[in-house]
Amino acid sequence: MKREANNRDEMTGEEMEKTKKTGRRPGRVQAAKTRLAAESKTGRKSATTRKVVRKATAKKEEPVEFGKGLKIIPLGGLEQIGMNITAFEYEDSIVVVDCGLSFPEDEMLGIDLVIPDVTYLKDNIDKVKGFVITHGHEDHIGALPYVLKDVNVPIYGTKLTIGLIENKLKEHVLPKPVKRKVVSYGQAINLGCFRIEFIRTNHSISDAAALAIFSPVGTVVHTGDFKVDFTPVNGDTIDLQRFAELGKKGVLAVMGDSTNIMKPGFTMSEKTVGKTFDNIFADNEKSRIIVATFASNVDRVQQIINSAEKYGRKVVVEGRSMVNVISTASELGYLSIPDNIMIEMEQMKNYPPEKLVLITTGSQGEAMAALSRMAANIHKKVFIERGDTVIFSSRPIPGNEKSVSKVINELAEKGANVIVQDTHVSGHACQEEMKLIYALTKPQYAIPIHGEFQHRKAHTELAQQMGIPKENTLLLSSGDVLEISPARAALVGKVQAQGIMVDGLGVGDVGNIVLRDRQHLSENGLIIIVLTLEKYTNQLLAGPDIVSRGFVYVRESEYLMDEAKGIVYAALERCLDHNVSDWSKIKTEIKDSLSDYLWKKMKRNPMILPIIMEIE
Amino acid sequence: MKREANNRDEMTGEEMEKTKKTGRRPGRVQAAKTRLAAESKTGRKSATTRKVVRKATAKKEEPVEFGKGLKIIPLGGLEQIGMNITAFEYEDSIVVVDCGLSFPEDEMLGIDLVIPDVTYLKDNIDKVKGFVITHGHEDHIGALPYVLKDVNVPIYGTKLTIGLIENKLKEHVLPKPVKRKVVSYGQAINLGCFRIEFIRTNHSISDAAALAIFSPVGTVVHTGDFKVDFTPVNGDTIDLQRFAELGKKGVLAVMGDSTNIMKPGFTMSEKTVGKTFDNIFADNEKSRIIVATFASNVDRVQQIINSAEKYGRKVVVEGRSMVNVISTASELGYLSIPDNIMIEMEQMKNYPPEKLVLITTGSQGEAMAALSRMAANIHKKVFIERGDTVIFSSRPIPGNEKSVSKVINELAEKGANVIVQDTHVSGHACQEEMKLIYALTKPQYAIPIHGEFQHRKAHTELAQQMGIPKENTLLLSSGDVLEISPARAALVGKVQAQGIMVDGLGVGDVGNIVLRDRQHLSENGLIIIVLTLEKYTNQLLAGPDIVSRGFVYVRESEYLMDEAKGIVYAALERCLDHNVSDWSKIKTEIKDSLSDYLWKKMKRNPMILPIIMEIE
Repeated sequence: MKREANNRDEMTGEEMEKTKKTGRRPGRVQAAKTRLAAESKTGRKSATTRKVVRKATAKKEEPVEFGKGLKIIPLGGLEQIGMNITAFEYEDSIVVVDCGLSFPEDEMLGIDLVIPDVTYLKDNIDKVKGFVITHGHEDHIGALPYVLKDVNVPIYGTKLTIGLIENKLKEHVLPKPVKRKVVSYGQAINLGCFRIEFIRTNHSISDAAALAIFSPVGTVVHTGDFKVDFTPVNGDTIDLQRFAELGKKGVLAVMGDSTNIMKPGFTMSEKTVGKTFDNIFADNEKSRIIVATFASNVDRVQQIINSAEKYGRKVVVEGRSMVNVISTASELGYLSIPDNIMIEMEQMKNYPPEKLVLITTGSQGEAMAALSRMAANIHKKVFIERGDTVIFSSRPIPGNEKSVSKVINELAEKGANVIVQDTHVSGHACQEEMKLIYALTKPQYAIPIHGEFQHRKAHTELAQQMGIPKENTLLLSSGDVLEISPARAALVGKVQAQGIMVDGLGVGDVGNIVLRDRQHLSENGLIIIVLTLEKYTNQLLAGPDIVSRGFVYVRESEYLMDEAKGIVYAALERCLDHNVSDWSKIKTEIKDSLSDYLWKKMKRNPMILPIIMEIE
Repeated sequence: MKREANNRDEMTGEEMEKTKKTGRRPGRVQAAKTRLAAESKTGRKSATTRKVVRKATAKKEEPVEFGKGLKIIPLGGLEQIGMNITAFEYEDSIVVVDCGLSFPEDEMLGIDLVIPDVTYLKDNIDKVKGFVITHGHEDHIGALPYVLKDVNVPIYGTKLTIGLIENKLKEHVLPKPVKRKVVSYGQAINLGCFRIEFIRTNHSISDAAALAIFSPVGTVVHTGDFKVDFTPVNGDTIDLQRFAELGKKGVLAVMGDSTNIMKPGFTMSEKTVGKTFDNIFADNEKSRIIVATFASNVDRVQQIINSAEKYGRKVVVEGRSMVNVISTASELGYLSIPDNIMIEMEQMKNYPPEKLVLITTGSQGEAMAALSRMAANIHKKVFIERGDTVIFSSRPIPGNEKSVSKVINELAEKGANVIVQDTHVSGHACQEEMKLIYALTKPQYAIPIHGEFQHRKAHTELAQQMGIPKENTLLLSSGDVLEISPARAALVGKVQAQGIMVDGLGVGDVGNIVLRDRQHLSENGLIIIVLTLEKYTNQLLAGPDIVSRGFVYVRESEYLMDEAKGIVYAALERCLDHNVSDWSKIKTEIKDSLSDYLWKKMKRNPMILPIIMEIE
């Protein structure tokens, strides 16, 4: 019973406002002018998602023909956190910014990770000039080993970024070698008709870059993941001067990080965490200290090592990814490690607790990570002792709150002193930082990236506060083809962009049907009924046997299983008495009768699988 | 390789501190004096959880013999959020405070809810005098319909609490009627050797009570869930005078709410939310307003109705639990509803959007709740329209963050304006409120309840700040039998207290084996192999047939399934060639070969179920 006055439906938010103010709807011409021309070419269900991209307010009417603009095509990263990848296309050149993975949603049972669908790149492989990577986090580099198998083009990134990518590629067999090139801040590379410059930024991993993408129709500034840190631990502050210079020359669009856009103020400097560490080390002189943090946060690790040095402790590193990142980062000069401070886990027993710091993975409560194993008492080498100080130098990523809490409780129960206060700062810009970027670059368009819809929506509002006309703040969905030029911005198409699920070595072989079955099995378990029939006479030769898993504990439910068998027999007899010889009908009859019985009896709905074998 | 200096292991935190200060370990006598005498009688794995309950600092040495103290036995509610239930036992009297359920943990696949194990009450049924209920939330009343089947004793509670319990009991068939008695604030009831007084408190549901439990060895104050609200929406402020009076007379122990104990300050008054509602209604005069909140928060609903009246809107209520609670609360006089303000959903179409407020369930993003169905466009009667204002008058309960976020994104994508700021206050005491209770009651012991270990641990520290000796702040686990008197507090036993899982109508028939199978099936799916053998000759008469579910999409993996069949054939032939007639061996051979093959080929580990039928 849809509300009758559903004309509202067809109006954009802006028109709505006009209607409210003037009391009448905008004329048809006006409506047509401001309405989307975009058409969904693929089957993605976005019928209810109205696009807010409209004919844009042109800065100056330049003679760019329709169809001659720059195409910006996000192939992922907009509906979910992670899986960041965006194609920039102009005539016969495509460059791809980032190539990340995302972690599975709760309902993706058994899935290990999700990678972007790069069909569009494969279909246009001759145009694709390279991958340009903003920084070395999994949600920006993690899909490369999978995607490079089909789209083998050169990769460009800063030194640490390329180092981490190389680490990653070692673990995968690629059909042919991949070209990789280290780019410095300030350096620009030419890829087809694009020139791309790497600009220094700050983030929770070293060597993060924003990109200035110079195209024939204008310059797009892509912030990557960034924050403004005036006192970074390693390296310099984000190159604000370069942002300003670009702004002076004219920026067509800014694609800005939306992660923290709902947080007011300015993100704290990484250095503040170092002070907290020093205080904690001073307050806990007598106990062993264990610090859990993100493996990739090299500056954080540096600060732990700094405090360890200051307080005369040896440092042990635990967790595979932590060991990997630290070795890469120190080889490449991103970590400065005093001589003789690092020791192997095996040497720990030679030092008293108060002379040790353990840096470990598991800050997100991941079941198999080192800290979680210590907390659950199943780590082979480290045992939590009464009096240990455990620092979580992290915030739970949304969805991990409960697992983190579980680990904290387990640690506290073992007598550890768990510290979570002031031990972490975000790597993402808050509102004032993003405003600063707009103030410096003064772009014609704002295209929020990196964030769920609610974040990107809030980002468009912030951009409007910064003077960008509402119709120039663009909310895209993954797969949208945005054509943009100083004259206009419009959705001109749609490409495949749904994530591809990876389960073990299988890429894309688990789809919705398989997931639905896993869901059904996980909630209700399974009952299998097998029987053997004589092919021509339909005589019952063996069975029915009933096997169940994940349903009830059979040894304690014999009566139930006997009754179930009775139901199956009765169903079978009804079929055979009526000479039903169509097996699918027999199966349906068995399934329906048993299903009815179980629902009435116990309000449960297991998957029921009748299997009939035939013997001639 | 456990650290060698593991003598630390045997020390309590307090001893540890002494060691640190004096540089030597406390003497054996001292250690024995301060160490726990408690023994775990049941098999609960708490070996690593050291008890902090010790011989207590006696206020005055009263002549209470050992074994003659008051026993406090939490049967749930300490390891998990929810499932609050505590038995108080003295000689031949037991009273039980609350009888709640908890919601399943993530790993409890397919489980609907968890109820306490009341074996101890059943075993001592002659002593059990009644249930005393602090308030009408599910985590305090939800298990009653299940528990009353075995423990049919009278229930005592305030008017709304009993009203909600009656609602609940209507939905269940109980073998015999249950006595219920409404108790007023200030009133005391005698149950065996206990006298129990209900004390007015404030909480996120009306009619919440703290309890003064007068026992022959002293008075225990049980706060229930509470906050201090000086300007409550309905009724009066918590009866602080009575707490003070009890304190003057002497309180043995306070069992206090730990939910918000890690939050500094004072919880905001419920009335502040009313002001926010008024502002939102004023700011959104032209749009339909939808408010999602907890069904049981009657005062919140009252405030929404108040704002609706002020701004001339009709009120529609949606969601079964919301409709139930509102009807019970208004019948009992806890909601004051202006004439003609409530309309049925069917009448909504007769009013313009700006004349409507919809109050709905779904504030936690629960998949099947009304708001989630609206957001997903699968609600039958309400469609989210561009311009709707949706208020989340709630905070996500830990674990629900992602589902709430999903609903917010879906609403925003449909053009709704979603508001979450300042639209909720907690119903639980923050630090200053709990301190106030200690200042008024000055108990000898503090026994933190309602909260995970980390919260209760923090609560003991707060109690110590309030002057309660460290050894008198007691951290219990569910199932602990604490014996307490002015002379001492000690763990004297352990009773069964693990939660019982409810799946559909089945109570306790799903155990760890079933859950493990569900987990395995959910992650990897299932492969069934059926074959029919001739009984005596072991000749293969039919099959092997392979059926899979939740593994791969078979139509697209024919080659894989053919290969798998080949593996099974080969395994079978190996067995039959060697005259293996033990079916379990044949099954194992098939299972192992196929499992190896699949792991090597695709790094997956589905459940493999070989089923052999025999024909004579």
